[in-house]
Amino acid sequence: SKSLQSKELESLEEKYPTLYGELYEIKNNLELHYKDMQDLEFTIENQKLWMLQTRNGKRNGVSAIKIAFDLKEDGIIDEQEVLNRISSDHLNEIMLPIIDVNEERQADVITRGLPAGPGGATGQIVFSADDAEKWHADGKEVILVRRETSPEDVHGMYAASGILTSRGGMTSHAALVARGWGKCCIVGCADLLINYSNKTVVINNNTYNEGDWLTLNGSLGNVYDKKLSLVMNDLNSNPLFENTMNLSDKYKGLGVRANADTEKDALNARELGAQGIGLCRTEHMFFSPNRILSMRKMIVATTLEERQNALDELLPHQKNDFYGILKAMAPYPVTIRLLDPPLHEFLPQTDKHIMELADELNVKKDKIHQIIEDLYETNPMLGHRGCRLGVTYPEITKMQAQAIFSATKQLIKEGLKPYPEIMIPLIGTEKEFVHQKEVIQSVYNSMNFEMEHKIGTMIELPRACLVADKIAKHAEFFSFGTNDLTQTTFGYSRDDVGGFIYDYFNKSILPNDPFESIDVDGVGSLVGLAVKKGRKENDNLKIGICGEH
Amino acid sequence: SKSLQSKELESLEEKYPTLYGELYEIKNNLELHYKDMQDLEFTIENQKLWMLQTRNGKRNGVSAIKIAFDLKEDGIIDEQEVLNRISSDHLNEIMLPIIDVNEERQADVITRGLPAGPGGATGQIVFSADDAEKWHADGKEVILVRRETSPEDVHGMYAASGILTSRGGMTSHAALVARGWGKCCIVGCADLLINYSNKTVVINNNTYNEGDWLTLNGSLGNVYDKKLSLVMNDLNSNPLFENTMNLSDKYKGLGVRANADTEKDALNARELGAQGIGLCRTEHMFFSPNRILSMRKMIVATTLEERQNALDELLPHQKNDFYGILKAMAPYPVTIRLLDPPLHEFLPQTDKHIMELADELNVKKDKIHQIIEDLYETNPMLGHRGCRLGVTYPEITKMQAQAIFSATKQLIKEGLKPYPEIMIPLIGTEKEFVHQKEVIQSVYNSMNFEMEHKIGTMIELPRACLVADKIAKHAEFFSFGTNDLTQTTFGYSRDDVGGFIYDYFNKSILPNDPFESIDVDGVGSLVGLAVKKGRKENDNLKIGICGEH
Repeated sequence: SKSLQSKELESLEEKYPTLYGELYEIKNNLELHYKDMQDLEFTIENQKLWMLQTRNGKRNGVSAIKIAFDLKEDGIIDEQEVLNRISSDHLNEIMLPIIDVNEERQADVITRGLPAGPGGATGQIVFSADDAEKWHADGKEVILVRRETSPEDVHGMYAASGILTSRGGMTSHAALVARGWGKCCIVGCADLLINYSNKTVVINNNTYNEGDWLTLNGSLGNVYDKKLSLVMNDLNSNPLFENTMNLSDKYKGLGVRANADTEKDALNARELGAQGIGLCRTEHMFFSPNRILSMRKMIVATTLEERQNALDELLPHQKNDFYGILKAMAPYPVTIRLLDPPLHEFLPQTDKHIMELADELNVKKDKIHQIIEDLYETNPMLGHRGCRLGVTYPEITKMQAQAIFSATKQLIKEGLKPYPEIMIPLIGTEKEFVHQKEVIQSVYNSMNFEMEHKIGTMIELPRACLVADKIAKHAEFFSFGTNDLTQTTFGYSRDDVGGFIYDYFNKSILPNDPFESIDVDGVGSLVGLAVKKGRKENDNLKIGICGEH
Repeated sequence: SKSLQSKELESLEEKYPTLYGELYEIKNNLELHYKDMQDLEFTIENQKLWMLQTRNGKRNGVSAIKIAFDLKEDGIIDEQEVLNRISSDHLNEIMLPIIDVNEERQADVITRGLPAGPGGATGQIVFSADDAEKWHADGKEVILVRRETSPEDVHGMYAASGILTSRGGMTSHAALVARGWGKCCIVGCADLLINYSNKTVVINNNTYNEGDWLTLNGSLGNVYDKKLSLVMNDLNSNPLFENTMNLSDKYKGLGVRANADTEKDALNARELGAQGIGLCRTEHMFFSPNRILSMRKMIVATTLEERQNALDELLPHQKNDFYGILKAMAPYPVTIRLLDPPLHEFLPQTDKHIMELADELNVKKDKIHQIIEDLYETNPMLGHRGCRLGVTYPEITKMQAQAIFSATKQLIKEGLKPYPEIMIPLIGTEKEFVHQKEVIQSVYNSMNFEMEHKIGTMIELPRACLVADKIAKHAEFFSFGTNDLTQTTFGYSRDDVGGFIYDYFNKSILPNDPFESIDVDGVGSLVGLAVKKGRKENDNLKIGICGEH
């Protein structure tokens, strides 16, 4: 076919019809042989056709899916091969708004970062969460540019079309929140020199001001300094999506559940075919403005009574969350993970917010500072988090169990069949599991009302794999948390791996990123061991996998 | 026997000779039965003796060792049982200065911290490393009181009799340095409210000033606010020590090597009977004033040439270190671990020191700040350290190998038989090991001089255990780094474990501290697996264990 540039020229077909016929036949032969669209290089010398090279043609997501189904229609590949040809990236491209391919091709990439949240986004630069919210309320599209984000920025991140940070890795706050929302996000973009007081960002010697336009390709990590058009997809009327989903259902060996923390996401997941929720994180629920204060009260409490009062404030909110999610998904199961992150993640970070909290709680600013200092951890990834919180503060586990079971009870009374699966995170020893299970069961027993439910754990530490048989004596399900398991098995912090992993690729020390493609020899062997040990002890053990692999 | 308080009273023997005889016989029977000194409780009612309770008597280190040998003399226990009755804590007590037992018994503990460096120390409070050095030079004994310590404080830590910090865990900088030196140290003493500008520390509402006396019991973590006498032991004339060592040699199943980073420590270890050095850390060598600048130049270098120049400055120092240590230990082996900690540990932390470094290197202060920010890690334990440094900067490994082999060569020429074993830290994959081994071997080959040596690795990551067979194809020895292996297997940061581990003990979730007593089910099974896999692939694999267990 002819492009804008070539439309005035004579075509090969017109000029050399015989050679054209020959080329056409070779192309068909090659495509039949490789069972894929070919990207051919040829030359014509003295009226003779020479083939120089052939390879599978590169394509974007939409084309990839279309080509795969076309090849099936032509009888060249079978249905299973269609599925093999479609990657999750291809699907992502048709599920999220993406930058118009032609416009993107002609734009210059001004810098690159880590592709933390896929899809495309375009908007005007703002430098604070408050500004993002304000501008958005005025009907503007904004890109929130920050060195990094914290829980206090969540309202602005929500308002922004895309998020761009100079620091942080694939599991930084910005990346996790954005991915959870399906929001376009680029992190760890080290070229950015951000000056908050001047409201400028310098990128490779060019200065950009508040209000300037940026476009982000969050699937590739590319940044453009102009407004590019976005293309949206309506999944409900997209035959490619529907066909892919139907075919996946036909051949799947593993059930698929969604990752959802809100009723809205749960409904969306169900509509898209998820048969349950595999990971419902409960901590995100504490960040909204009307809850974070109660959460902070709970953390700064110095007596059990103070802590209990703060938890009592959180209970109705949590119950409400679980009510919505369990209802949206009933009768499918919802795996609810109990509080996981270290408490310091919930504390304010700026002086202004610390002052506000001190005022609201009627304590001295120094006390908040002292608590923040006390909760500081050298290696938060290996610190006081997961079930360790539940062991030291059983009242937190109790409140969460109460919220889950009261929501479940209410739904049953309304004639639904909710199915909560309570997941205890970061278990490393049998006794931790027994301790937390007892707290949950005593809440259940106190309700005197029969409800279908399971109590299980996330297997995300090497030790949990090594003693999986002991844990399986008490647990009804295992969900392998392969992100954290990869971190501890390799001793790689996802936030810090950027310091050396590119050298590891360049020097062929790692064949690929162990956080993207599971490490079969190491992490895989631990998973295999845990499955074997777990099943040996408990025939009915339900096993799933939960990670970004 | 009679105490100060009871000397005026009539003794039991005088008042009730029959009952006394009866009690004496019962005591002998019980001690024979339990084969240990008994702590008895009895009462006499209406001239009748009632035995209420008996248990093995508690004792300090000297008494414990003496009692064990006395029981053997009396034929009650055998030689192996003598060894079982003597713990490492008992030995520590006779090897280090300790607080006079009677004085300590009568003093009040004003606060407690983590027992990071054993033994006792007494001295006057100072709040900075410079003051510690100055006061010490004036002939004073000082206790250095800091929130935490950093490499810049090392000269003051060296000068101080003891170190007391308000923050940090058992592997904080203060703890590691102090333990390495056998210096009394208490860390993480959260009651301290230190004010550097006023030079005061408030402990439970009492204010102490610079110059006030403190005494530390680093074996228990107890702090006293007065000068208590210390008791020193001369090991060379201590029969208890000599007898214990002789008996240990007779029954040991495992050879013992020392942990030493200096010639002086190596000589000392050899005199005490060590048959080699199992861990010679090379990073401590970079902290002394005449080297830290070269190290920092190396870190801030932006080109390979700049980095090479800085390394060239370090080379003669390293060679000198290794010369001394290898000489002190020849012909016994010295296991030298290549650079292990993340580079940010070597950078200055205070504004003053950053300014100094910028001046010395003739770069802008902002550049140093930028580098410090770039090297910041969220989880340094899981970051850019160990062999990951050697892979990204092979020139560091090369310099260290050059230093080791040139020192070895010189010693051989002097007629000695030095035996270096080069240990590559934090290996997680076969290819990392091969990469580093090749760097080392090319240095060796370039020297064209035959030297006995080994190249091996520290096994300290779960993944290294899982692929130990692959690593053993290339490695000549494994040394299990059980501290780090425990951290990653459990997902516990030693620096942060204080946030929950006491709750874990109280709730019987952990039977004991997995950093003190090895976790057989988890960490032990990984070690077992690695030994099996390693030996299967390599019959000659030398295996050792290196940790605080």
